[in-house]
Amino acid sequence: MHIRFITTGGTIDKIYFDALSQFEVGESQLQAILDEALVDFEYDVVPFLQKDSLEIDDADRARLRDFIAADDGAYYVITHGTDTMPETAEVLAGLEGKTIVLTGALSPARFRTTDAVFNVGMAVAAAQVAKPGVYIAMSGQVFEAGAVRKNRAENRSAATDRN
Amino acid sequence: MHIRFITTGGTIDKIYFDALSQFEVGESQLQAILDEALVDFEYDVVPFLQKDSLEIDDADRARLRDFIAADDGAYYVITHGTDTMPETAEVLAGLEGKTIVLTGALSPARFRTTDAVFNVGMAVAAAQVAKPGVYIAMSGQVFEAGAVRKNRAENRSAATDRN
Amino acid sequence: MHIRFITTGGTIDKIYFDALSQFEVGESQLQAILDEALVDFEYDVVPFLQKDSLEIDDADRARLRDFIAADDGAYYVITHGTDTMPETAEVLAGLEGKTIVLTGALSPARFRTTDAVFNVGMAVAAAQVAKPGVYIAMSGQVFEAGAVRKNRAENRSAATDRN
Amino acid sequence: MHIRFITTGGTIDKIYFDALSQFEVGESQLQAILDEALVDFEYDVVPFLQKDSLEIDDADRARLRDFIAADDGAYYVITHGTDTMPETAEVLAGLEGKTIVLTGALSPARFRTTDAVFNVGMAVAAAQVAKPGVYIAMSGQVFEAGAVRKNRAENRSAATDRN
Repeated sequence: MHIRFITTGGTIDKIYFDALSQFEVGESQLQAILDEALVDFEYDVVPFLQKDSLEIDDADRARLRDFIAADDGAYYVITHGTDTMPETAEVLAGLEGKTIVLTGALSPARFRTTDAVFNVGMAVAAAQVAKPGVYIAMSGQVFEAGAVRKNRAENRSAATDRN
Repeated sequence: MHIRFITTGGTIDKIYFDALSQFEVGESQLQAILDEALVDFEYDVVPFLQKDSLEIDDADRARLRDFIAADDGAYYVITHGTDTMPETAEVLAGLEGKTIVLTGALSPARFRTTDAVFNVGMAVAAAQVAKPGVYIAMSGQVFEAGAVRKNRAENRSAATDRN
Repeated sequence: MHIRFITTGGTIDKIYFDALSQFEVGESQLQAILDEALVDFEYDVVPFLQKDSLEIDDADRARLRDFIAADDGAYYVITHGTDTMPETAEVLAGLEGKTIVLTGALSPARFRTTDAVFNVGMAVAAAQVAKPGVYIAMSGQVFEAGAVRKNRAENRSAATDRN
Repeated sequence: MHIRFITTGGTIDKIYFDALSQFEVGESQLQAILDEALVDFEYDVVPFLQKDSLEIDDADRARLRDFIAADDGAYYVITHGTDTMPETAEVLAGLEGKTIVLTGALSPARFRTTDAVFNVGMAVAAAQVAKPGVYIAMSGQVFEAGAVRKNRAENRSAATDRN
C-alpha cells in the first residue's frame, strides 16, 4: 500500500504569518498529522497548489486530472478547500483503477480544536478500503463524488443525493 | 447510516485521577472526539467494558459477540486496548451482515499529541466503506481480522499476513 | 485581590472566520485561558477595543488611560497586539496606585502551540506581585514601561534599556 | 537575569508508559513549555528528584535547601507535586538573597488541557518581580510560604492566611 497525498491548499493548510497579520495558505500540515498518528504505510506528499478552493479554476482541475491520470499510483488523498471540493471531485471521476479521496477541514489543522486530524484519518482509511472511484471524506461521512454539496449556512457538509 | 460505538477501555480512554495519583480507565473520550470532528451522522455509544485489554478475557469476548449478534445494528466501531485487539477481532469474525471496526490508541486521547483522533476517524470511515467483516484500524492502516498482531517492541501495529 | 482584564485585540485574540476566509480579531480567548488554568481569584473582563495594535491610535490610548484613571481597580492585565505594546505602556505610565501589566502573544491563543497561555500566566503573577507601575510581560520576561521594543526581525521581544 | 529551574517530580511532570500501563514521573516537561513560550532569558534545568510529592521526605527537603544555599543563583523556579508543596516551601524559607517560586499542576503538562503552562508562566514572572523570599504560584495566585495549604476537596489551592 502506497498512498500519494496531493495538497491543493484550503483551510486545512491555513497558517498565520505574524509579519503580514493575516492567514495564508502555506506548507501543508499533513506531515505533522501523519507523524502524530504514527502511521506505518508508505506515502509521499505532492504539493500541487496553494489556493483557497474558491480560486481553483477549471484549468487547475484539468491539470490535476491529467497529473493523476499520468501518474503510476493507485491510492490518492487530496487535501482541498471545502467550498469547491465537490466540483473538483466531479472532474476527477472516471479515472480507471484509481481510488481518490478528497478531504479538508472547517478549521485549520494548527488550531487546538480542529476537524483536520479526524478527516485525514477518514480519508486514509477510505483510500485503502473503498473500491476505485472518487470520494469526499468530511463531517464523519464518506460520500461518492456527485453526492455532496457544502452547506455553508450550517457549516458542515450535507449529502444532496446519497444512495 | 447509523454507527454504534462500543467502548471497552484501553489506552484511548485512559484518564488521570488526582486523588489516586494514577491513570485509570474512565468515561470514554469518544464523545469529545466526535464533537470536535463535527460529525454529521447518527450514532450512539454503548459503554460495554472499562478494562485494560490485557484483562479482557474469553468470557468478556463471548459476551461482546453475543451482544453484537443480537443487536439490530449493522455498523460498529469498538474502542479497545491495543494489546489484545487482534484476539477480540478474531472472536467477532463471522457475524453476518455486520461491519465491525476495532480501534484504539498508543497514547491517551486526552494527551496533547495522540493517535486517538486519527484512529477513530479511520474507524468511522472503514465502518461505512468496508464490506461486512471485522477490521482493525491502527497505525494508518485497516487490517482484516486475523492479519495483525501488536508489535510491542516497535510500539506500532504490523501486519503478519496481509494480502 | 481583584484583577480587571482589559482586552484590546491583537494576535492573542485573533480568530478565524470561515465565511470571510481571513483572520479577524473576535471575542477574547481570555476566559478559556483562565478557566483552563483553574484560577481562583476574582476578576472581570472589559472588552475595550478589538484592533490590531498597528491600528490603535493616540485617541484610543488616551481613552484607555482615562478609563483606568477613573476606574476603582488597582490591578490590571491588558491584552494587546505586540507591535505597539510599548507605546501604549508609555501612555499608561504614572497612574498612581495602579499596577498595570500588558501582555499579548506572537501566535493566537487558539493555536495548538502558542505563547498566549504562558504570557497571561506571567501577567497575572506580575499584576499581583509587582509594585504599582506599568509593565510588559512577554518572551518570558517582565519589563517596566519604556524598556522594551518589539524586535520584529527576531520575532521576540528584547529589552533596550533594562535596569 | 538567570533563572535556575529545579524539578522534583509531581503531576506536572507525570508521563505515561505504555509498557507498564501506568503513569510515572519522567523527564520534565519544562523544556517543552519554555520552548513554546518563546522565552528569551537565560536559564538551566536541574533535575533534582523524580518523586510524587507525598514521597518527598525531610531528608529530601534538607538536601534541597542545602543545594540552594550553596548555589550561586538568585532566582529559582521549583516544579513540585501539589500535595506537599507548602511543606517544602516552609523548609526553604529564610535563604538570604534568593527568590524561590514553587509551582506545579493539577493535571499533567502533557494533557491537552492543563494548568501547567499558565502556572510555569506565573512562576517565571514571580521569580523576576518578587523580592527575595519563598513563594507558591498556583491557581492564578502567588502566595508567600506559610500562607497556603492544598484544598484537596476543592481541587485547588486556597490561602489560609494571606497578608
